[in-house]
Amino acid sequence: MTPGRDARGRRARNRAYGRYGDRSRGPYSPGVTAIAELTAALGSGKVLTDPDVTDSYARDRTFLEPGGPLAVVLAESTADVVAVMEWATRHRVPVVPRGAGTGLAGGATAVQGCVVLALQRMTAIRELSPADEIAVVEPGVITADLDRAAREHGLMYAPDPSSYEISTIGGNLATNAGGLRCVKYGVTRDSALGLEVVLADGRILTTGRRTVKGVTGYDLTGLFVGSEGTLGVITSATVRLRRAPLVPPATIAAEFGSLRDAAAAVAAVIAAGCQPSLLEMLDRATLKAIDDWRNIGLEPAVQAMLIAQSDAPDGPAVAERMRELCEENGASFVAVAAGPQEAEELIGLRRLAYHAKERLGACLVEDVCVPRSALPDMISAIEAIAVRHDVLICTVAHAGDGNLHPVFVFDRGLPEPPPEVWAAADEVFREALNRGGTLTGEHGVGLLKRRWLALEAGPVTEEVHLGIKRVFDPLGILNPGKAI
Amino acid sequence: MTPGRDARGRRARNRAYGRYGDRSRGPYSPGVTAIAELTAALGSGKVLTDPDVTDSYARDRTFLEPGGPLAVVLAESTADVVAVMEWATRHRVPVVPRGAGTGLAGGATAVQGCVVLALQRMTAIRELSPADEIAVVEPGVITADLDRAAREHGLMYAPDPSSYEISTIGGNLATNAGGLRCVKYGVTRDSALGLEVVLADGRILTTGRRTVKGVTGYDLTGLFVGSEGTLGVITSATVRLRRAPLVPPATIAAEFGSLRDAAAAVAAVIAAGCQPSLLEMLDRATLKAIDDWRNIGLEPAVQAMLIAQSDAPDGPAVAERMRELCEENGASFVAVAAGPQEAEELIGLRRLAYHAKERLGACLVEDVCVPRSALPDMISAIEAIAVRHDVLICTVAHAGDGNLHPVFVFDRGLPEPPPEVWAAADEVFREALNRGGTLTGEHGVGLLKRRWLALEAGPVTEEVHLGIKRVFDPLGILNPGKAI
Repeated sequence: MTPGRDARGRRARNRAYGRYGDRSRGPYSPGVTAIAELTAALGSGKVLTDPDVTDSYARDRTFLEPGGPLAVVLAESTADVVAVMEWATRHRVPVVPRGAGTGLAGGATAVQGCVVLALQRMTAIRELSPADEIAVVEPGVITADLDRAAREHGLMYAPDPSSYEISTIGGNLATNAGGLRCVKYGVTRDSALGLEVVLADGRILTTGRRTVKGVTGYDLTGLFVGSEGTLGVITSATVRLRRAPLVPPATIAAEFGSLRDAAAAVAAVIAAGCQPSLLEMLDRATLKAIDDWRNIGLEPAVQAMLIAQSDAPDGPAVAERMRELCEENGASFVAVAAGPQEAEELIGLRRLAYHAKERLGACLVEDVCVPRSALPDMISAIEAIAVRHDVLICTVAHAGDGNLHPVFVFDRGLPEPPPEVWAAADEVFREALNRGGTLTGEHGVGLLKRRWLALEAGPVTEEVHLGIKRVFDPLGILNPGKAI
Repeated sequence: MTPGRDARGRRARNRAYGRYGDRSRGPYSPGVTAIAELTAALGSGKVLTDPDVTDSYARDRTFLEPGGPLAVVLAESTADVVAVMEWATRHRVPVVPRGAGTGLAGGATAVQGCVVLALQRMTAIRELSPADEIAVVEPGVITADLDRAAREHGLMYAPDPSSYEISTIGGNLATNAGGLRCVKYGVTRDSALGLEVVLADGRILTTGRRTVKGVTGYDLTGLFVGSEGTLGVITSATVRLRRAPLVPPATIAAEFGSLRDAAAAVAAVIAAGCQPSLLEMLDRATLKAIDDWRNIGLEPAVQAMLIAQSDAPDGPAVAERMRELCEENGASFVAVAAGPQEAEELIGLRRLAYHAKERLGACLVEDVCVPRSALPDMISAIEAIAVRHDVLICTVAHAGDGNLHPVFVFDRGLPEPPPEVWAAADEVFREALNRGGTLTGEHGVGLLKRRWLALEAGPVTEEVHLGIKRVFDPLGILNPGKAI
């Protein structure tokens, strides 16, 4: 069956990717009285019902067309969240939890007749303990704000998704977000020690602990991290901080005449035990998009760039070793940053990548992850798929993790990706899975990748997922239709 | 109510800690035909029923008196485990999975009428990929054997519980075992990427992945790790390997006149960002037990010893810094190992600790973990509890993690710890919890700590635990009565 088409070859758009939920059907109609009850419980400033306003809370960073929310609640406390969930259980209203809406998989896309539970006002850092190297934070804290607060004490919050200046900790937890530094420091789950969660019926569950280690009971913290709001609403998290490096990181950028050479350099850097704190790859299509925008003087022969950083005490020596390894693997030029400002300029190239691509058209951002040894072949496969389907694919990769972000660019005038983009994306997913990889390294399944979920998670996994979902959310009101 | 006594003050031994399961009651009686069916399915060499033999598979390293197993199965393959679980579901026979039986919480203690499912024959390292830095191993692989296999490729398997020369990966996964190196490299969960699990009804579930990152679906890998055999039987694990350090670690041992000084030195080492790969504390009672056995020339004024190691490339410089920090915090003497052999002698002191204590009597080994800042107070509290109850408590600690192992020594002639030991242990648990700590940092709840579980995990957690248990094991046949 052609991707994007049903068994008869018809466009499946409206079924699979059109407006999520059907306004005309209206399975959830709690009515005016119920909303009045909610407003009475919370106070009028926290409940928004004007469609012009609520619609702005209905989307994330995908093209997915949301259903219309019944209301948006701007929660300010755990008690507010409890009140919403008790009310939602009473009236059987679906609830879509929301952080900053920076997700790339439709996890926060509103469903028809839902309440969007926005947590962006819960911005308290309830505690920051330098001695225990932990912080207790509310879900609306901006990721970079927590990092900055930690740095005042010589500490850092390690996870740094590309959106970290605008994303929230709650959203990061919901998707188990990764980032650039996670090649050394791990993903969000590796920094989450414990959670306060409001369950579907309003009960408060406390998971995990304040200690570095602990094995009392099942790992419920891990279960909630990455569950995309389908099991409960996180209202507080105890997160692990780490010692911030004492010296500025040492940074290099290497240009290659082929993506395979760049991938070989990645393998060499890992195998040499360099432990980079950042190891990013940009393909020519991405570099060209940046060059067209900011004129970085891109040479015609450059097919790929690696940006690598070491924040170890002997960073400059490690950077020098990485430079040698890049040259041994065919790099035509390697820039070594002379200081923090030059380093920031090199890293800046990577941070420009997504915006540079958005200038070219609408973007479907994918997120496959393969075992590191499969990186060169996976990159070749993506290049071949782009040619075969005549689709522009710009790829950046958290190369040290084998995590690729092929971005499929399409005509901004279209309401959704055209069939050739879906066909190309479908092949990318299958190539990744065939190489022992996964559909999503750090963005989540959301709404966008549910169509492919069964390719990775077999029927037993699906049964187990549904069983766990029923334990936490027997009425199915928490972010229905997402993630699993 | 006095611990170890019921509401009327009666000895609660037989109810709470006596023979687990009552032979006379016999809730599970599948009979001779069923055993014949099991033997036919597996082959006679794999099913043991002679009580003299099966009893040797019924205990772990605790004093807990097991129930009598109906049979012991020596599984050799995933297919064997599937056959056992299908049979057990048909006949509703409880199954107690078992690795090497080195557990310290009774997680592998047989229950009356069960089948002990021993996995120690499943010793294949199915794959070891240096390029991807992963191994796929069966549960019966000895932890240190995997580490040795990895080191042939310049890699290491980081988790190293004290029992790592005799414990199995399967047991480590079941308890989410820690170890000495986990102060730097994390616990077993941090090295587990994916699992093959046989569910209670014999279905095979595959969790996780081969990639470093991945967020497709719920974190089922994390859910099984530390679940103590109550949710499924792990038949294979994809584990993460790490680059082995290129140079031998640098090691110091520091003597202190007080435990609080030693604890202050621990805090200073962590705060200075030394990132030790090992940071162990031994109290005087432990040192004395070692000295009585091996004559290490223990000075009368020495109340505590810290052993610290750095495996960083600049290890000797870090060790020197740690030496300074120990001296600044009152160390009376610091030995710096001149080479690997001297280092091994210092680490050897730590490895002797448990055996030295076992020479003194029977041991109740506890495992509380507190936030690092609470370590000095927690140590003082344990000292006071020992005096108050006139109980010998020897404490070693994975100090960098705040994970303490107070060992309560009692008369070997007694069938179980006497009331004053339970009373002292009860106070230690409560003191740890009052300081934001946990009952168990790395040993698990098993059977031993279930009595205190409700103090840490409230009623909502308990309901969630039971709900999850029902999803995986609706008949309650998997390691009943353990962990939750």
